[in-house]
Amino acid sequence: MIQRRGLLAAVAILASLPLLPAAAQEVVEKKVFEAGEFRTRGGATIPNTRIGYQTMGKLNAAGDNAVLICHFFSGNSHAFGRLSAGGPAGYWDAIIGPGKAIDTEKYFVVSADTLVNVNVPDASTVTTGPASINPDTGRPYGMTFPVIAMRDFVEVQKKLLDSLGVKRLALVAGPSNGGLQTIEWAAAYPDFVERAMPVIAAEIDAWMQGWLDIWEAPIRLDPNWREGDYYGQGREPPLKGLAEAWKIVTLHARDRLWAKQYDRKLPEGQDPARKIGDRFAIEKWLDDAAAARARTSDANSFLYMVRANQLFLNDYPSLAAAMEGAAKRWLVIPSPTDRVFVLDGAREFIEVLRKAGKQVDTAEVTGPLGHLNGVVGMAPLADRIRAFLGA
Amino acid sequence: MIQRRGLLAAVAILASLPLLPAAAQEVVEKKVFEAGEFRTRGGATIPNTRIGYQTMGKLNAAGDNAVLICHFFSGNSHAFGRLSAGGPAGYWDAIIGPGKAIDTEKYFVVSADTLVNVNVPDASTVTTGPASINPDTGRPYGMTFPVIAMRDFVEVQKKLLDSLGVKRLALVAGPSNGGLQTIEWAAAYPDFVERAMPVIAAEIDAWMQGWLDIWEAPIRLDPNWREGDYYGQGREPPLKGLAEAWKIVTLHARDRLWAKQYDRKLPEGQDPARKIGDRFAIEKWLDDAAAARARTSDANSFLYMVRANQLFLNDYPSLAAAMEGAAKRWLVIPSPTDRVFVLDGAREFIEVLRKAGKQVDTAEVTGPLGHLNGVVGMAPLADRIRAFLGA
Repeated sequence: MIQRRGLLAAVAILASLPLLPAAAQEVVEKKVFEAGEFRTRGGATIPNTRIGYQTMGKLNAAGDNAVLICHFFSGNSHAFGRLSAGGPAGYWDAIIGPGKAIDTEKYFVVSADTLVNVNVPDASTVTTGPASINPDTGRPYGMTFPVIAMRDFVEVQKKLLDSLGVKRLALVAGPSNGGLQTIEWAAAYPDFVERAMPVIAAEIDAWMQGWLDIWEAPIRLDPNWREGDYYGQGREPPLKGLAEAWKIVTLHARDRLWAKQYDRKLPEGQDPARKIGDRFAIEKWLDDAAAARARTSDANSFLYMVRANQLFLNDYPSLAAAMEGAAKRWLVIPSPTDRVFVLDGAREFIEVLRKAGKQVDTAEVTGPLGHLNGVVGMAPLADRIRAFLGA
Repeated sequence: MIQRRGLLAAVAILASLPLLPAAAQEVVEKKVFEAGEFRTRGGATIPNTRIGYQTMGKLNAAGDNAVLICHFFSGNSHAFGRLSAGGPAGYWDAIIGPGKAIDTEKYFVVSADTLVNVNVPDASTVTTGPASINPDTGRPYGMTFPVIAMRDFVEVQKKLLDSLGVKRLALVAGPSNGGLQTIEWAAAYPDFVERAMPVIAAEIDAWMQGWLDIWEAPIRLDPNWREGDYYGQGREPPLKGLAEAWKIVTLHARDRLWAKQYDRKLPEGQDPARKIGDRFAIEKWLDDAAAARARTSDANSFLYMVRANQLFLNDYPSLAAAMEGAAKRWLVIPSPTDRVFVLDGAREFIEVLRKAGKQVDTAEVTGPLGHLNGVVGMAPLADRIRAFLGA
């Protein structure tokens, strides 16, 4: 199998994040924030709200050297450092740490798990969502959990930052869903947010709402989903539907250049030109990757995460209206081959910011991975980010 | 509900094709071609193969004024004319007919239903596929029907053209799946094909094979699919899964500009910010459109149509190898906002043709509909097509 070295190297990044010098292998502690009773934008009350978080660096006396990193759709707070010695590094570890672009010798960096985080079976993820126990019934909420909006993610994070003594964010940043939280933060707390850096994110318009619906649809089709009532003894979670949902996300978040390694390849023993049930290599890879991802996530939480994304900036009549009073300084970083947040959408978002009189820098994150370049390909942007923080 | 007039007009095109002067309302007869026993590229034999077709214009004595129009994934032979007086016009009727760009006063235009056509419940579609009766069992083939490749579409069409006395095609053309057939035709019969005009089509690489798999996956998830054994008394076809499949195709084949009419709109009585089961306007539109489409199509045929697309140019080691000996004169027409065959893929295809020494003209089809511009927005290309045919 002849492969291009550049592609292989890029794909390897996904499989095992790049090794760093031992000195930079910071171990971070995963902590739990008890947010207590939380009132959602939709008007519901959640008792005993809790989320996980991690920090690196020290908050200064003024409380204004803090940075908040928000995670992507399938991620958690693990943006930087290692949760144990020798364990894998966080997804943006290349740009966060001592001496790095977001320098933890200068900044107090915080990253939290969102509400309705999908990684319920992962021991290092702490979230409150449909798989949590409803204290009124002693059983998981399932689909009785209240709807969570993107703004609710921000409000719980604000409580966390308040509890830590943060008075101002020098930067809020994140990729994809984390970029959406960044934009929502900049709209909600313009004076609290000094700089905003959304990466591979732009508006959630009706077209994107439709795509999010397509992502989740296979879950609802799986007979094991049972309207969300699949928790507990003797019940099977809807792993087939959830795997198909992940398959869509997985391909949508990548690009043609990445897929080239599978061009005209067949898995061992498969003959799709003669057997209708047989698979092409790309299908086999997607099947396997998605099935593995399904086992480490929760289907109902996927549905709630989709809805939170669909409710992006839902408190405002339009994107332009939301950005009018928003934070002033922006570094917007699209990926030109992004098939989720397509480039023309990113350009329109930048135009909206400029029309609203913001100070907007832009950069591009590139590589063979399309959307995912913004998660795994940030290292070359280090100088741009450092300059933005220093400006 | 305030809407943009331009968008509404464009959407209206889809709902009811534009009215033409009475003189141009040509009624065409749908005919049946009995292809008899057909040997597939995969080595299987299908007895009693039949497909529907329609023609307009007259074949000349030399048999070399013929044009073949190939249909898109969900289409059939109805590219031009009306099947009854006052009935809807064919999808490319704006460019095919007496005095039009593809002038039926000069050319003998043929268009056929493909094998494994999805429109099984439609009385005017004639196809041979998984819903056809297997003469050995007296029951529908279901998933025992042999795999059909894109090249098989071409081979059955070749038999049809031979039976009609066609000696050479002045042009083969079509949008999307029809563009793929066009490319396959140009590779298979370079001397028979004088000119090729693929519209909104380029290579099916691994990334596209993966997307095609995503399109079909909901069908396999529907418990009513029963491994394809859903035909006959007392059984329900997998309409839910098939509708979800159409939903993906429907959104993928459109674009952001089209979706803007649904931005921040909610269907009557729906409150998705408070009720997890409630829908946004774009979701409701997709649900309704897809459910309607599911009722007029066949799930197994969708699976076979996907496979035929995945087997695009499967007889060749690469796209470049296939194009080396292919027909010489090309007019390639991408849609710049196409999210299925993305613009960089179209550009790479054009580059492959040029490297193979072909004479390649290009044009762009534009509009708010992304991929579908190439189906419903061809009228402005009339002069380009006329010039290409005259060159």
